Amino acid sequence: MTMNVRGYAALAVKADLVPHNFVRRDPRANDVVIEILYSGVCHSDIHNAYNDWGGANFPMVPGHEIIGRVSQVGGDVTRFKVGDHVGVGCMVDSCQHCSPCEQGLEQYCVEGSTLTYNDVDRHDKMPTFGGYSETIVVSDKFVVKVPDGLDLKSSAPLLCAGITTWSPLRHWKVGKGSKVAVVGLGGLGHMALKLAKALGAEVTLFSRSPGKEQDARRLGADHIVLSTQDDQMAAAKDQFDLIIDTVPYVHDLKPYVSTLALNGTLVLVGYLGDLDPVLSSVPLVLGRRSVAGSVIGGIAETQEMLDFCGEHGITADVEMINIQDINDAWKRMLKSDVKYRFVIDIASLKA
Amino acid sequence: MTMNVRGYAALAVKADLVPHNFVRRDPRANDVVIEILYSGVCHSDIHNAYNDWGGANFPMVPGHEIIGRVSQVGGDVTRFKVGDHVGVGCMVDSCQHCSPCEQGLEQYCVEGSTLTYNDVDRHDKMPTFGGYSETIVVSDKFVVKVPDGLDLKSSAPLLCAGITTWSPLRHWKVGKGSKVAVVGLGGLGHMALKLAKALGAEVTLFSRSPGKEQDARRLGADHIVLSTQDDQMAAAKDQFDLIIDTVPYVHDLKPYVSTLALNGTLVLVGYLGDLDPVLSSVPLVLGRRSVAGSVIGGIAETQEMLDFCGEHGITADVEMINIQDINDAWKRMLKSDVKYRFVIDIASLKA
Repeated sequence: MTMNVRGYAALAVKADLVPHNFVRRDPRANDVVIEILYSGVCHSDIHNAYNDWGGANFPMVPGHEIIGRVSQVGGDVTRFKVGDHVGVGCMVDSCQHCSPCEQGLEQYCVEGSTLTYNDVDRHDKMPTFGGYSETIVVSDKFVVKVPDGLDLKSSAPLLCAGITTWSPLRHWKVGKGSKVAVVGLGGLGHMALKLAKALGAEVTLFSRSPGKEQDARRLGADHIVLSTQDDQMAAAKDQFDLIIDTVPYVHDLKPYVSTLALNGTLVLVGYLGDLDPVLSSVPLVLGRRSVAGSVIGGIAETQEMLDFCGEHGITADVEMINIQDINDAWKRMLKSDVKYRFVIDIASLKA
Repeated sequence: MTMNVRGYAALAVKADLVPHNFVRRDPRANDVVIEILYSGVCHSDIHNAYNDWGGANFPMVPGHEIIGRVSQVGGDVTRFKVGDHVGVGCMVDSCQHCSPCEQGLEQYCVEGSTLTYNDVDRHDKMPTFGGYSETIVVSDKFVVKVPDGLDLKSSAPLLCAGITTWSPLRHWKVGKGSKVAVVGLGGLGHMALKLAKALGAEVTLFSRSPGKEQDARRLGADHIVLSTQDDQMAAAKDQFDLIIDTVPYVHDLKPYVSTLALNGTLVLVGYLGDLDPVLSSVPLVLGRRSVAGSVIGGIAETQEMLDFCGEHGITADVEMINIQDINDAWKRMLKSDVKYRFVIDIASLKA
């Protein structure tokens, strides 16, 4: 038994997305069926559809920043009821018994978590399809609650951009007195500014373009450092306890590493690939600095982040689009022309 | 007023060490005068004398693993008295007022700590000379006590090899249940095995030569992984909470990074230079792994390490030499032909 769902899909590598009907499973006992309201558009949607990371399967229905309304629940589901506003992020399942899963770090599941799209359900082996669609069926453990009062449209990006920056902020214990810097002001970067500021940190944005200053300050930056200006970089030396580097392409980390304080960590959250040009061990050894990485966040942590956003009234800055405009939106994203996240109004799919 | 001291010095880059008389300051009120008994021979003595790191000044009297007996104390010194057995490591002074100094992390002094040799005293601007000599004059804050009962000869290497491995073990909170790996079985590596084991960790040695197994087990290794064997490296994947990499030359970190567990850190303690070939961000991001560095340790930490060694009866495995044999010893060190640290019996200087 299955259900027919409308969505938008890429049918081949780098092909434009087109309307596409597909099949989702009938809910299992622990499943939640969600009527999708909004779906954020993440840069990794493009990476996946363009097969930048390998392993692309088609048809591919992207989307892992999902906000919706519960329309049906399986018999064993107790935490959700029809009508609840809920979110789904990058994962829809994991093994649930390895050490990372037991610690609530499903994103590091030893067997590999089941991704929201371009993956295969671990029980029935059906392909997974994402949020560029009208309905999704998700195991209840991977559904989070949207706090009352949080704007639904602009909450969608919290499910990936939000948690991806929240998780390292929490893991590296950012709080009052911390000095945090953010590299790159896109979907992730603008969330990092907001969240770090709300956690009490003194926040700096590294940017290559002077035009971003006013926006950066509005979003939470106390300082802006133009990374193209040697004097500004030199003045920023030895400052930061944590640098969240959101840049999604290869870039030189050395100038940023030297702005880390003693015991500071630069954490990569947006780039998978070679750290080219080579790093030097000198600033690491002589300042006990670290270069690290982090990927999204666990489910409990995602709920914690949403609750924190609820308390502090934090959502993403979004540009709403109709799903018919998704191909243009992707083109604009490739030029970094979005402030700061596109969100698809899924109502447009039914129009 | 100064004192004349006998020692061995390099008079030029890569020149053999030769007998050399030089001048040390008369003790200031907070100084301790130490009759040197034993001086460990560290690989960085060669790096400095060969000007591998730049900044070599000649004549250079190397040596920063010093064990001796207090022979005189300045009027303000209360912690030491004549006859005490004491140690001096890589630093003899620091600014004492920056944030790292206030945290007991003098090795990361913002103004730069004063090194035991090849440096300049921050008060009188006299050059500093190291432990390949009969006497040293050191600010009392940079002198540590050798616990009763610890063998003096084989304690000398604790002052550099010991603290350099102890500091990261403590900083990254190694204890019972930790899985620690050590790369390289030299002066630092053999101390890392002993200290990690005594801290309660399960300890693995990465080695390139099968002949080291028996020795490694005696020194504290529970497991040996031959890094030249792909099957053994594959079997070691995702294991270690902390890897202490003691290798003092450029080498590929990638095979080791993939043996880090979730949240694991590889810490470089022996190499200053480019991390060539390039690292990949993939294992960092997908396992929240870190690549870090660490240099020696603070003075309070050095005392803590010596006290721990006293409690656990830990010293280095040493080969004693007369100072007249130092040039041969350096040649052997360059071939890694020492188990595991040369220590100069300074009595030979007076013969």
